[in-house]
Amino acid sequence: MKPLQPTPPGNLFMAVTALMLPSTAFAQAGHTHTERPNIILFMVDDMGWQDTSLPFWNQRTFYNDRYETPNMERLAAQGMMFTQAYACPISSPSRCSLMTGSNAARHRVTNWTLEKNKSTDLSDDSLALPDWNYNGISRVDGCRNTYKAVSFVNLLQASGYHTIHCGKAHWGAKDTPGENPTHWGFEVNIAGHAGGGPATYLSERCFGNTTDPKKQHKMAIPGLEKYWNTGVFLTEALTREAISALDKAKRYNQPFYLYMSHYAVHIPIDRDPRYFAKYLRKGLSEKEAAYASLVEGMDKSLGDILDWLDQNGESRRTIVIFMSDNGGYATGTQWRDEPLFTQNFPLRSGKGSMYEGGIREPMIVRWPSVVRPKSVCGQYIMIEDFFPTLLEMAGIKHYKVPQKVDGKSFVPLLKGQEKPSRRPLVWNYPNVWGNTGPGISLNCALREGPWKLIYNYKTRRKELYDIPNDIGEAHDLAASRPSLVAKLSKKLGRYLRKMGAQRPSDKRSGRPCPWPDEP
Amino acid sequence: MKPLQPTPPGNLFMAVTALMLPSTAFAQAGHTHTERPNIILFMVDDMGWQDTSLPFWNQRTFYNDRYETPNMERLAAQGMMFTQAYACPISSPSRCSLMTGSNAARHRVTNWTLEKNKSTDLSDDSLALPDWNYNGISRVDGCRNTYKAVSFVNLLQASGYHTIHCGKAHWGAKDTPGENPTHWGFEVNIAGHAGGGPATYLSERCFGNTTDPKKQHKMAIPGLEKYWNTGVFLTEALTREAISALDKAKRYNQPFYLYMSHYAVHIPIDRDPRYFAKYLRKGLSEKEAAYASLVEGMDKSLGDILDWLDQNGESRRTIVIFMSDNGGYATGTQWRDEPLFTQNFPLRSGKGSMYEGGIREPMIVRWPSVVRPKSVCGQYIMIEDFFPTLLEMAGIKHYKVPQKVDGKSFVPLLKGQEKPSRRPLVWNYPNVWGNTGPGISLNCALREGPWKLIYNYKTRRKELYDIPNDIGEAHDLAASRPSLVAKLSKKLGRYLRKMGAQRPSDKRSGRPCPWPDEP
Repeated sequence: MKPLQPTPPGNLFMAVTALMLPSTAFAQAGHTHTERPNIILFMVDDMGWQDTSLPFWNQRTFYNDRYETPNMERLAAQGMMFTQAYACPISSPSRCSLMTGSNAARHRVTNWTLEKNKSTDLSDDSLALPDWNYNGISRVDGCRNTYKAVSFVNLLQASGYHTIHCGKAHWGAKDTPGENPTHWGFEVNIAGHAGGGPATYLSERCFGNTTDPKKQHKMAIPGLEKYWNTGVFLTEALTREAISALDKAKRYNQPFYLYMSHYAVHIPIDRDPRYFAKYLRKGLSEKEAAYASLVEGMDKSLGDILDWLDQNGESRRTIVIFMSDNGGYATGTQWRDEPLFTQNFPLRSGKGSMYEGGIREPMIVRWPSVVRPKSVCGQYIMIEDFFPTLLEMAGIKHYKVPQKVDGKSFVPLLKGQEKPSRRPLVWNYPNVWGNTGPGISLNCALREGPWKLIYNYKTRRKELYDIPNDIGEAHDLAASRPSLVAKLSKKLGRYLRKMGAQRPSDKRSGRPCPWPDEP
Repeated sequence: MKPLQPTPPGNLFMAVTALMLPSTAFAQAGHTHTERPNIILFMVDDMGWQDTSLPFWNQRTFYNDRYETPNMERLAAQGMMFTQAYACPISSPSRCSLMTGSNAARHRVTNWTLEKNKSTDLSDDSLALPDWNYNGISRVDGCRNTYKAVSFVNLLQASGYHTIHCGKAHWGAKDTPGENPTHWGFEVNIAGHAGGGPATYLSERCFGNTTDPKKQHKMAIPGLEKYWNTGVFLTEALTREAISALDKAKRYNQPFYLYMSHYAVHIPIDRDPRYFAKYLRKGLSEKEAAYASLVEGMDKSLGDILDWLDQNGESRRTIVIFMSDNGGYATGTQWRDEPLFTQNFPLRSGKGSMYEGGIREPMIVRWPSVVRPKSVCGQYIMIEDFFPTLLEMAGIKHYKVPQKVDGKSFVPLLKGQEKPSRRPLVWNYPNVWGNTGPGISLNCALREGPWKLIYNYKTRRKELYDIPNDIGEAHDLAASRPSLVAKLSKKLGRYLRKMGAQRPSDKRSGRPCPWPDEP
């Protein structure tokens, strides 16, 4: 069958006024609900690879015994676990890659976004930081420092999916078009806005809202007024609203896409009262018990949604994907009180870091009659791979978007057609995050096969790890494998330049920091 | 310049699964805000042609002196009045034609919609009514009795407009996809849902909302919780929310489309406390003073929006269109207490009727540097004409939608290229409305040039009027002009059949009622 001819860009302009052609091919032909699967992407915020009772490593760990996530176990028993699923070290870059399919080096939303025309970078003493896209992504022009793209949700919606956003969005700075989930194709928006975390999970504090708009917390959660002062924890409120939206979707009799994007387990680590006492009894400190309660509250939400699917006869035609957006928080004692940078053990460091603790995510996919239950995939995948994958799941193959899609569909992996991949993955973080620690800020990295190269723009230090044999990144092989380092540096440098990546520059000389393959 | 090739329908299907191609041409190229105008469609509900101090007739009337609409006068002084703007006799048919560009005879949403799979028709003693599209319009399959279409708002949004819905929607029955304005391309939805009228305008009654969902009024207004018990009248609350959305649109720096769709002046005719006393003092009865207060409250909203445009430097690049969706309410004494069917004088009858009182609307267009100020257009236009007109205003010329667009752009009229038109307009109402009166229910009509033919499916009576010379439809010329009646009947019958119109049938014999040109 002949694919649709892509339109030459020149034809997109009209004669009279220079404007864009709108969508010419909205859903036009009949199809019934059963022809296409529902898709639920259950996205957790700041959840580490070990924040679960489900082991993603080759052995059970201390943390697998601490946390209780029975519904993740249930999902894994019915689907496929990915043991090497990657995201960016920070939320906005991951979420912008998810929506656009572009690598963060390309979309340049390399740090977290919040306010219009304001970078969230901390400053560096000797380096000037690049003018990155701190306004996030946008479908339209009109705001500077944005990356222009069409999301896979726009395409799902145009093709006939009912699309539901619930929870954290974090795609565009406040007062830019991308802040609004409906801009990205969501027909329903529950509690999503520019903010990348919750002011508080507590209904007693109205989720951070105040009567005086001037004193409003920037991270106050919008749209959940009916739960204020009810004692319903944020995670639970979002779950109830999502299920109510699913009830509606069922009545619409459309295939649906639910982006269940929890604010949990992002700071502030409030105590989920349903589970907090249990973890105290298990001997955890108050801070760690609070964190464990956030994790289990999130898992309960997953269970409620799986139950809804079962009770509504939708399980068999619904794909459920579990994912997190970056590593677990490990850089401060305000919220965690075990030794710093240990919270993702056996992985090194945590959120913000190029080490595995910052980028490796717990990921599970359940897809009845496609994915083999209880299966495990050891191939690595990257957050931008979700874009082409979800479109393929929805049967959408021919589409045209303004951005370059770097991601590759992992549908073949789901079908068990697993082949060892030498495909390179690329990260770029030429920014300075708020917290410091191992592998955090001003660096870039490449993963290819077993090897991972990390390059620091400031120190110009290179590190090389054999990830399968050294998951904790304890043994830097850079000094002993100089030719491999040179080869990987060259590759990383080439990728970064090809994608239009940004890099810091020296404040005094104005000269850009060398790429990894430059002297 | 070569237009975009339409895709042959066969190519819309993929090889593997029978599904639809999604939009392939979302906004892809750069354009700045200034290249395309903002558009505001200010739509009033159930407002009659004479419910204004602005005369749309060739003389000032009693009602022009009663009502006070200074902002309509202000708009007309800066724009063009249309003295023969038509809609359908009932809300849903008009609004579905507006969104789809299809004539009501074609989209078959010929009566008002509310609940899924339930017709709102009253029954007739001898006629069986057609299985019309009582579920409204929808972009997707999955619900029966819907008309499948893409709205012009979908196209505006895909092309880069920021799209705001405020007020009444009324495009799809509850629990069908079309109930949600976001389904139709609106990025913001303020207070729109399946309901076609307000439970109440009063914040003291929480706009009809109750704490017990089972006792919830079907017409309770959603989403205005913050105005409950504040004393802010519904019309004012919607205006404030619309202006807040405009503030946001300004920050987005996108061209915007605002559908300011007031619930006013639909029943219940609550008293707008800001204006009620004034009309009592003018000597009006309580009911008529309440109605006049609703009208002036609506006009104040128009003024606030015009003020916003002025204060924000957006007037010159914003097109403002004023319109109503059907004639003024004239069929009951519960809400009006002057003689029945006189409320739209000099027009005959009112809402629900095929006489001019049911279908002729007050319409004004302000388009700086295109429309001549203080101009008047006497050409007739029809509600489905808005679809191609608004797309042309936005510079969108080449689009592909699943439905047949019956409407014709009136941009040439706005540009003063006025030519006497012999184009026929068609109405079809094979339904039975809740209220009775002259020209109401079970009929169809044709307007061509000066002539208007009305045919009643039940009585088979035909009426013929010379509208320019008999605006009150007092002199039926059918008996004296039999050959003209035959000619127009033939034309009407042909149009109805061509559009796939529906008609009632005899309950006993099962035979359909004859078309107007059948014996």
